[in-house]
Amino acid sequence: EHLTSLSGAMIGKGGHRHFMAKEIFEQPQVIGDTLNAMFNPAERTITLPDLPFDLGAVPRITMIACGTASLAGLVGKYWIERFAGVAVDWDLASEFRYRAPVMAEGGLAVFISQSGETADTLAALRYCKQQGQHCLAIVNAPESSIAREADAVLPTLAGPEIGVASTKAFTTQLVVLACLAIALGRARGTMDRETEARLSGTLTEVPSRAAEVLNHDGRIKALAEETITPARDVLYLGRGTSYPLALEGALKLKEISYIHAEGYAAGEMKHGPIALIDDSVPVVVIAPSDDLFDKTASNVQEVVARGGKAVVFSDAAGVARLKDLALEAIALPAVDPFVAPILYAIPVQLLAYHTAVDKGTDVDQPRNLAKAVTVE
Amino acid sequence: EHLTSLSGAMIGKGGHRHFMAKEIFEQPQVIGDTLNAMFNPAERTITLPDLPFDLGAVPRITMIACGTASLAGLVGKYWIERFAGVAVDWDLASEFRYRAPVMAEGGLAVFISQSGETADTLAALRYCKQQGQHCLAIVNAPESSIAREADAVLPTLAGPEIGVASTKAFTTQLVVLACLAIALGRARGTMDRETEARLSGTLTEVPSRAAEVLNHDGRIKALAEETITPARDVLYLGRGTSYPLALEGALKLKEISYIHAEGYAAGEMKHGPIALIDDSVPVVVIAPSDDLFDKTASNVQEVVARGGKAVVFSDAAGVARLKDLALEAIALPAVDPFVAPILYAIPVQLLAYHTAVDKGTDVDQPRNLAKAVTVE
Repeated sequence: EHLTSLSGAMIGKGGHRHFMAKEIFEQPQVIGDTLNAMFNPAERTITLPDLPFDLGAVPRITMIACGTASLAGLVGKYWIERFAGVAVDWDLASEFRYRAPVMAEGGLAVFISQSGETADTLAALRYCKQQGQHCLAIVNAPESSIAREADAVLPTLAGPEIGVASTKAFTTQLVVLACLAIALGRARGTMDRETEARLSGTLTEVPSRAAEVLNHDGRIKALAEETITPARDVLYLGRGTSYPLALEGALKLKEISYIHAEGYAAGEMKHGPIALIDDSVPVVVIAPSDDLFDKTASNVQEVVARGGKAVVFSDAAGVARLKDLALEAIALPAVDPFVAPILYAIPVQLLAYHTAVDKGTDVDQPRNLAKAVTVE
Repeated sequence: EHLTSLSGAMIGKGGHRHFMAKEIFEQPQVIGDTLNAMFNPAERTITLPDLPFDLGAVPRITMIACGTASLAGLVGKYWIERFAGVAVDWDLASEFRYRAPVMAEGGLAVFISQSGETADTLAALRYCKQQGQHCLAIVNAPESSIAREADAVLPTLAGPEIGVASTKAFTTQLVVLACLAIALGRARGTMDRETEARLSGTLTEVPSRAAEVLNHDGRIKALAEETITPARDVLYLGRGTSYPLALEGALKLKEISYIHAEGYAAGEMKHGPIALIDDSVPVVVIAPSDDLFDKTASNVQEVVARGGKAVVFSDAAGVARLKDLALEAIALPAVDPFVAPILYAIPVQLLAYHTAVDKGTDVDQPRNLAKAVTVE
């Protein structure tokens, strides 16, 4: 607490009104820094630090975290299963600890935490070590308990994050997980050189694409003030790797604006939450042009048919398809669907930020929340 | 649609104002019916129908469903991992279909659906069959597509469910999953005869305990009218097998009262949702006296310390511990933690039901929702 405030004061807000804004705008830089530590530009390959276990021999992966970090982990699950063909059991640390999880012998357990001190995640790490799992930490604080106790660390190079609502830690966690998926794919023989070069190439484009996304700041600010600030409830929808992004968008809005936002897998709408839809509940849709776009677009139609107001984040092709249906549709740069979750984190951060500023909440220190949850 | 309305009219509401109330009150009966089809009282063992695969050889399980059925499946995951020591990959059907799920060779895939016609679940079943998984259906409609296409069926004997919000289908799904967990444990050698006799014995007590829970109807009605009806937002919290119950309680309230309710793993509160807490957001806590009770109780303290109003469902021992903190604490019968999820479904159903009646919504046919979601 004390150290955080001190370093916060030393670091300053770099011309921004809040640390959170500064940290959102640092993302092109810190995403690049985190990637550069693992990317070999000559070979277009990903090189992880030396690990004391063989990634190629990992039979199964357990992915554990809390809060925003857990949502990075959920994206990681989708990526790793798709690109490395190894099953990932994803869980919240507070649930994992107390259920009777079944893990594979010689399995890999991955722990994600900005502070590296998250109590439930640390306890889960200790449990997994006792169970003989290989323990890998993805942390932003290399001197932290989780980093020290893990068998290996993949650092996020986000720099100090002062705002309680995590932003740059999340996107750099995604970068590390993307690199881990590629490294696992290569080690397990499920990814050829060409695919590795292509995917790691798309990762190198993320910093400049992220900077382009930040150019939409003014429009997202207007959208926040016109559509989100007046709402008491907001739904976020997405499919596939956009589903964790919908959860993250809702969590961010909830944390700092105190608006009751909830994220849903778009395909689950019809199984309950669609009953909430009326013209007072904006529905934020994360819908990059990927092979799930058509399915998500039909969910947007269902929302609109029931009087709902849809706010769509997509790319030019997606916006062209949905702009007549949506109240607002913002075209982000078109990117390979692989890296879309990293980029689409940014508009939902900005949307939450501007809503909170407009509502006059304490953006960097929202009520009831602590930066590092070091108690259970 | 047509058939459902017809049979609904033929079945009648049995003196209840709504089908949903009738179906909630049928639960002692249909839970008993469903269990009796699998329970051998002389031996105190569980006998499943003959299956065309060996439960003892199942290396891993995939559990797939939508909506309320998916929450039964999540309880099933906790039970199966604990009692049978086999890993369960749980997923929403609409997500499972489009990610690249990694399944074990010779694995078992379990599909849960009241109607047996849920489009996404049926598509997931077809995919898993193509992948050579053993496919087991837990359905309430034995003539349905999912029942016909699965390799084997474990029926819920709930009888026709007319109310759109699922109640008795959910609790009978839980009964089937509890029996499946026991049968898997025995087949895999992780459960001895004594434990099987004890656990199946606790299952046989559920119908009479469920009837006792229904005796709290009047008090839950008063609670709904005083505390939930006036709320715009409600949180539900639970840990372990009470976590899916928190999700189910929130889903039920959302579906029929249109109040924005959200379920959370209690340990995740501090990672975001606690920012929502003020005296206008009731927090419903599912907290049977089990080995997680103390952890949940400390989450209740956090809620109350931040001005939140806690409504606690527990048993006499738990209520004694929390009654001074909580706005209201209702003591359900004390039961073995194994069967608590089946019993604790009932008060959250009643809470949603009475809130919806009090708000004057169309309880049996809530807006925007269909009974069987036969489109994607």
